[in-house]
Amino acid sequence: MGSGPDRSAPPTVGPKRDGTAAAARRSPLPGAEATADDPSWPVPLHRGRFSHARGHELRDTAGVAAATAPVPARGGAVMSGTVLEQLLRGPSGIGTAGLNLTRRQVAEVPAGAVAQVPSGKPKSGDPVPGLYFHPVAEPDAERVAEVNRRIKLWAEEIELYPPDWEDQFDGFSVSRYMVACHPDAPSVDHVMLATRLMVAENAVDDCYCEDLGGSPVGLGSRLLLAHTALDPVHTTAEYQGGWQESLLSDAPRRAYRSAMEHFTGAATASQADRFRHDMARLHLGYLAEAAWDQEGHVPEVWEYLSMRQFNNFRPCPTITDTVGGYELPADLHARPAMQRVIALASNATTIVNDLYSYTKELASPGRHLNLPVVISEREAVGDRDGYLKAVEVHNELMHAFEAEAAALAAATPVPVVVRFLRGVAAWVDGNHYWHQTNTYRYSLPDFW
Amino acid sequence: MGSGPDRSAPPTVGPKRDGTAAAARRSPLPGAEATADDPSWPVPLHRGRFSHARGHELRDTAGVAAATAPVPARGGAVMSGTVLEQLLRGPSGIGTAGLNLTRRQVAEVPAGAVAQVPSGKPKSGDPVPGLYFHPVAEPDAERVAEVNRRIKLWAEEIELYPPDWEDQFDGFSVSRYMVACHPDAPSVDHVMLATRLMVAENAVDDCYCEDLGGSPVGLGSRLLLAHTALDPVHTTAEYQGGWQESLLSDAPRRAYRSAMEHFTGAATASQADRFRHDMARLHLGYLAEAAWDQEGHVPEVWEYLSMRQFNNFRPCPTITDTVGGYELPADLHARPAMQRVIALASNATTIVNDLYSYTKELASPGRHLNLPVVISEREAVGDRDGYLKAVEVHNELMHAFEAEAAALAAATPVPVVVRFLRGVAAWVDGNHYWHQTNTYRYSLPDFW
Repeated sequence: MGSGPDRSAPPTVGPKRDGTAAAARRSPLPGAEATADDPSWPVPLHRGRFSHARGHELRDTAGVAAATAPVPARGGAVMSGTVLEQLLRGPSGIGTAGLNLTRRQVAEVPAGAVAQVPSGKPKSGDPVPGLYFHPVAEPDAERVAEVNRRIKLWAEEIELYPPDWEDQFDGFSVSRYMVACHPDAPSVDHVMLATRLMVAENAVDDCYCEDLGGSPVGLGSRLLLAHTALDPVHTTAEYQGGWQESLLSDAPRRAYRSAMEHFTGAATASQADRFRHDMARLHLGYLAEAAWDQEGHVPEVWEYLSMRQFNNFRPCPTITDTVGGYELPADLHARPAMQRVIALASNATTIVNDLYSYTKELASPGRHLNLPVVISEREAVGDRDGYLKAVEVHNELMHAFEAEAAALAAATPVPVVVRFLRGVAAWVDGNHYWHQTNTYRYSLPDFW
Repeated sequence: MGSGPDRSAPPTVGPKRDGTAAAARRSPLPGAEATADDPSWPVPLHRGRFSHARGHELRDTAGVAAATAPVPARGGAVMSGTVLEQLLRGPSGIGTAGLNLTRRQVAEVPAGAVAQVPSGKPKSGDPVPGLYFHPVAEPDAERVAEVNRRIKLWAEEIELYPPDWEDQFDGFSVSRYMVACHPDAPSVDHVMLATRLMVAENAVDDCYCEDLGGSPVGLGSRLLLAHTALDPVHTTAEYQGGWQESLLSDAPRRAYRSAMEHFTGAATASQADRFRHDMARLHLGYLAEAAWDQEGHVPEVWEYLSMRQFNNFRPCPTITDTVGGYELPADLHARPAMQRVIALASNATTIVNDLYSYTKELASPGRHLNLPVVISEREAVGDRDGYLKAVEVHNELMHAFEAEAAALAAATPVPVVVRFLRGVAAWVDGNHYWHQTNTYRYSLPDFW
């Protein structure tokens, strides 16, 4: 199979153990009650240790490079610099001071020269040449260490993996990942909500779909039964017990169950419903990819991209408000323009995974579908050209995301909408940072 | 495979044809703008031709039989008649006069003697002996005829099936079905929203999963690509077109696309999001069942019931508010108590399908999983005992639904909540009516 929300976090099947008691002991999250409509909301964002302070970082200035580069808008049209500039200038007033959806940065390439391949081979830990992305500041080491300590305790509590898989778990660097993706989380407890879910999602992907015992055969049953750890079964007294026990019967389900219990303790009912929906999408995506795998079928590029909108990081950025201690109301989340922005951002960030995990997947047994491979095969171009075209696809999705997010912020100048959009953008940036710097897992191909 | 939201509506793969123009011509639905908080909302319900007027119908009196019969509550406990009576008496005040969640009726059996098998063989068109259900008045013939006329025009417009499948389409009686399930729909246009979706859901199930060309092989890919007709893909300009064209490339996708276009034209964004989520659940359920089918695996009873909470009628009752021309707000829909009521109702109504389609599935090629078959196999009992136990499971789910719906209505005496719960109950009743009376498709086994 391809690459879900990435894979690692080696879990195992161990004796049943109920994490309920530990979950029940946890205290309510401080800060979770703060509303996003509070005029003070921008304050905790990008304070001190989370600020983005690199010299070439344009996050804190408005639309300088952006206004000079053509950006694809809805339907593939290109906006003029002037219109774009107006949009990116965005709303003003309380709660909008921190909004800046115009951050521009291309690796080793001056702003405005997006997606041009620079000369020279990238070094280990360098970004993909020509990739349009935004660098982030190093995540706070103290917070990373604390998240790391707690996630390992949790992994032990739910018996996620055997001791000899600890190196792989550490190499996943999930704590650095989640701290980088959630710079506005008001506390470590909030970051933990995202960290447990990320680990659980990887456990399910590894054990059910991928290398660590996974297979496309019977996957539909395994994923549905795991999904019930997120979306509970309501049946008769006689059969309810069998289902409840099943949630403790393997590491993926123990992880989903416990991570979801923590999440629902902090999220509103609508936020939990949103997460369930996004996880149902993810599982549908896994199953489409598994179907192709079983048949040895290489999809058309548009089919691959459609599948990858489901087998997608989406469930991660869309919890940014819960992790941030506020709520994007359900009716604002459901609006078509917001759904489109979320899809574009999630698609861009998922293609980042395809690009950075390319050599890892080549080295794995079997054929792993990813965007470069599918383009090469379906459009009859070489490996290098397939890869470089995939970089272009990513960049177009990123530009579309940013243009539409800016347009939505301008059309709906509500602080909570703007904060949510910024949270999604921060997740996209943090996700790139983690892929770029995770040299334990990733290396770039020899195409430059 | 088992039985999705039932199957029929023979579709076909024909030349591409875009239903957009026809959809764009339709006028906004009259009545759709009426809010459920409008004190006048109960008035259109059960007026004249939609009233439930049978002699033994207790819909319009409060808790008479109900208070005498023990009803399982959450966790399998049984509420006393007194507590139950209090709950079922429910809220009072504006908009609550029509609420009655205490309707009781068991086929041929006095109230209070639920799930006891009466003597004597049921005749064609009789209900399953011992089944706990509520009879409904015959749906208005004029409305049924008009829905039928329009759904056949729509089927022609999207080239759903070849002419020689017309008998099967007529035998499906989808118009009578949907008019019976939505007695409070303010217009034929509103009923059409549900009718198109029901036909489309059956087209996908038939052509992708079931007898009419369906197969578990590659199903994950087919269902995901069909799902994008409900939950659109957002990708680059180059690849967007390939996806858009795909939506017109076969009858199931044409049906989903057009039915969804009509639905989103009448629904709020949150209602559309809810429907997408419920359809993602449905598709996950299909894929779990397909996995078992591929492996020849008979699941445990609790596993089957878990799968059947997903491969479930749920997307049908949960649009009751859109079809009724009002909205249950997203935050009220997402509350755990509402989610539980929806799941219980949907599970009960889905087991009704297992019971009525039992002989049809026995007569089909291959082994079709249904609750009686799974109980017989997993609990090593005969066919008859498996069937009769499945009736008991159904009845327990129905009682739990009604008890929890009454409790929710009492705890949240908001007119829109009460109306939605009544709409779900009406769907459950209409669904039973359709199964019972559809002798073209269904007959009962020889167990009495």
